Amino acid sequence: MTDGSESAKLPPKDDFSRWYNELLWMAEIMDVRYPVKGLYVWYPFGFNLRNRVYSILRELLDVDHREAMFPLLIPKDEFMKEAEHIKGFEDEVYWVTHGGREPLEVPLALRPTSETAIYPMYRLWVRSHADMPLRIYQIVNTFRYETKHTRPLIRLREITSFKEAHTVHPTWEAAAAQVEAGLNIYREFYRRLAIPVIVSKRPEWDKFPGADYTMAVDVLMPEARTLQVGTAHHLATNFSRTFGITYEDPNGIRQYAHQTCYGISERCIAALISIHGDDRGLRLPPEVAPIQVVIIPIIFGESMDVIEACQRVEETLKTRGLRVNLDLGDERPGAKYYKWELKGVPVRIEIGPRDLEKNSCVVVRRDTAEKRSIPLEDVGDVVLELFRAIHENLFNIAKKRLDESIIDCDTIEEAQEKVSSKICRVSWCGRRECGLEMEEAVGAEILGIPEGRIGRGRGICPVCRENTEAKALISRTY
Amino acid sequence: MTDGSESAKLPPKDDFSRWYNELLWMAEIMDVRYPVKGLYVWYPFGFNLRNRVYSILRELLDVDHREAMFPLLIPKDEFMKEAEHIKGFEDEVYWVTHGGREPLEVPLALRPTSETAIYPMYRLWVRSHADMPLRIYQIVNTFRYETKHTRPLIRLREITSFKEAHTVHPTWEAAAAQVEAGLNIYREFYRRLAIPVIVSKRPEWDKFPGADYTMAVDVLMPEARTLQVGTAHHLATNFSRTFGITYEDPNGIRQYAHQTCYGISERCIAALISIHGDDRGLRLPPEVAPIQVVIIPIIFGESMDVIEACQRVEETLKTRGLRVNLDLGDERPGAKYYKWELKGVPVRIEIGPRDLEKNSCVVVRRDTAEKRSIPLEDVGDVVLELFRAIHENLFNIAKKRLDESIIDCDTIEEAQEKVSSKICRVSWCGRRECGLEMEEAVGAEILGIPEGRIGRGRGICPVCRENTEAKALISRTY
Repeated sequence: MTDGSESAKLPPKDDFSRWYNELLWMAEIMDVRYPVKGLYVWYPFGFNLRNRVYSILRELLDVDHREAMFPLLIPKDEFMKEAEHIKGFEDEVYWVTHGGREPLEVPLALRPTSETAIYPMYRLWVRSHADMPLRIYQIVNTFRYETKHTRPLIRLREITSFKEAHTVHPTWEAAAAQVEAGLNIYREFYRRLAIPVIVSKRPEWDKFPGADYTMAVDVLMPEARTLQVGTAHHLATNFSRTFGITYEDPNGIRQYAHQTCYGISERCIAALISIHGDDRGLRLPPEVAPIQVVIIPIIFGESMDVIEACQRVEETLKTRGLRVNLDLGDERPGAKYYKWELKGVPVRIEIGPRDLEKNSCVVVRRDTAEKRSIPLEDVGDVVLELFRAIHENLFNIAKKRLDESIIDCDTIEEAQEKVSSKICRVSWCGRRECGLEMEEAVGAEILGIPEGRIGRGRGICPVCRENTEAKALISRTY
Repeated sequence: MTDGSESAKLPPKDDFSRWYNELLWMAEIMDVRYPVKGLYVWYPFGFNLRNRVYSILRELLDVDHREAMFPLLIPKDEFMKEAEHIKGFEDEVYWVTHGGREPLEVPLALRPTSETAIYPMYRLWVRSHADMPLRIYQIVNTFRYETKHTRPLIRLREITSFKEAHTVHPTWEAAAAQVEAGLNIYREFYRRLAIPVIVSKRPEWDKFPGADYTMAVDVLMPEARTLQVGTAHHLATNFSRTFGITYEDPNGIRQYAHQTCYGISERCIAALISIHGDDRGLRLPPEVAPIQVVIIPIIFGESMDVIEACQRVEETLKTRGLRVNLDLGDERPGAKYYKWELKGVPVRIEIGPRDLEKNSCVVVRRDTAEKRSIPLEDVGDVVLELFRAIHENLFNIAKKRLDESIIDCDTIEEAQEKVSSKICRVSWCGRRECGLEMEEAVGAEILGIPEGRIGRGRGICPVCRENTEAKALISRTY
């Protein structure tokens, strides 16, 4: 189905843009040849990976959220209700203006995000204290008319897999706690993908249109760029006032509800691919790998013994619930190695006549290329142990790279010089003017004040020279 | 969340339209109050049911199909390539004409179905014999600008859950076999929903625009109307010629591929609700019921013993993997019965002090209202046995009703009279003129020649008076 991938060669990962585009195609994640800019096709292999990743997200959300589904089309009058929100989106919205050959009475927006589709319903659903907290999510396609350079999984005109949660609470504090709960879900989600994250409070000028404040989850991609892979917004009563979402408090007085929303898109898959992949292709954490183990017989001519041994191993692993592929194709073993490495299969098992004589097999880790000969009878236990080790190793490699990428810069000049290869940690007084000036001078973006120790430390704002105890991260972004 | 459903009363099922609309709302399947005609909101409970139903569909398809995902937006030039196809859809297509405040260079159609989005990709994916059979499906939202009366789950402007499979084969015969394989999947799917079906070859004038022939799956809804709940189309080389989908045959000659496509929408949920439901609400087959068992303590005042016994039963059933809800709410038992019957929970378990004295509990079937007292220690086995019995009973009731609804009519007058309460079985020579005249005179639609015995039998076409051995079914449809 890849028509020719066999003969193509993956560029080295250092050549990231080319590596990324070629890998998406060669590993059958996405086909970029759809005849509209910014729209891409999920190959079955990619979609399988996508489903496994989103299963984790569903599992984490389903603990105290419920999945629902709201319409894609939003009537113009509803869409235009919240002033800040419109300002943030009006240049990016696709409009449906015709049905059949007739113009529509009211133009319909393709949702760029679903606040204005969901909140008219929340107005009907929330009446009293007993209806809160209301925690609902949906996983849907959303649309942005991107005029910038589009890129598969990262900057799209159709976001095919937008998970958006929308919650309602009686108080500002309860909503703030939910923002934190949402972020905890995201931290756990990315931990399951072996991806370390930075969580920051976005600067005022970069928050979600209509939000009180925005928290964001960023990851470190190749070339020292960060990618925003999740956001959580405290909406306060900004939308509830517009859409009339109220409840009766214990004193019988109607109050505006406080809301939050938080989202993750298929950028999580872009991060998964880009952070773990190497010169040979994908490296997938076993939990989400569509194929977890590939078994390759090493045979020359007839060798039923070897094939039967492979089948027994396949059976053993399937009994344990693993996703196994026994590759009995005609290609040489080397070609098979290449193919399955490209697809990120975490563990390869090789069995040849000499292994069989010793009642053993060779197991090879995709992440380290480490090979071991093990007794055939241990294969189930060893593979599960390797899964844990591979997940941990992928996380540790990424964590080390992230930690080493964050460096302190005392001056704007220093940040300017380092930002092409590092995430710069800079003292910042928190003022808008200073922040914008820094972004302009460094030619990169302030992610915000990160949570935890890296966000704190005495220093001097390099713009206004005032003392401050806050540290901001600055990086080039997508 | 239903704001007031407690006080509302479900109309009797004989008053079907009202029953259907009220039930969707009261059982929290869909909210019809979204501010655009023909667009509806899936409540979490309804969406949970939807996911369970679609899990069955995925399970059946995943045996030899692969799931993928193609874009929603189709450029006008691709959409306009297949002449018959356009004719069939041009009055129903929504057009996106603007991105932000600018008009688009090429208008984009919201897919009414995805042939014209998928086949430009198949052109790239299919090169040789080895690429076939190609069997891919997606589950996506599709759009129809319906000008007729819309109805939730049945006639929609956004079909939120369209499962469409698209396959490619070297020969006409292989594609015909795939149409039959697709129908077998649908037969099994509906059997799992306890729904009997009729499979017919649609008349020429009612086939899919661009198809060689169309097979359809119909079910019997209340009021003797049939609902088309699945179709499978043999596309022959009609689309492959337009989109250039070819392969090289063993002699090195390029041949056009043969294609099929087959689809199911959320009408399957409409059928599930309408066929099994009764005056008290939903009756769900246990396999798809979001809640399979509800446990209700029968207590007056304090009664920790009873609650503990309920918790033990809950635990026992959860250990067996069942979806159980222990209702410890403050309402009277009668109010709880009403609420869970409305939501179609297949089995209710009641435990009161007197049951506990005997170490027993009462189990109540939703489908028959039959009550039994059973030993507490048997509860796991009894519930699983009841699940099988409930599924079988729901199927048998529906099958009996379907069989009794099909009656032979020798004349058009007879069909005309009977069609308001029956599906009419009429001899038909197969000619278009006779068929259309019959439809017109009877005021109903020819479903086609059904497969199996009911489609055969000697008789005389009531229009042209010729002898024929084929029988057509005529019914009022949605």
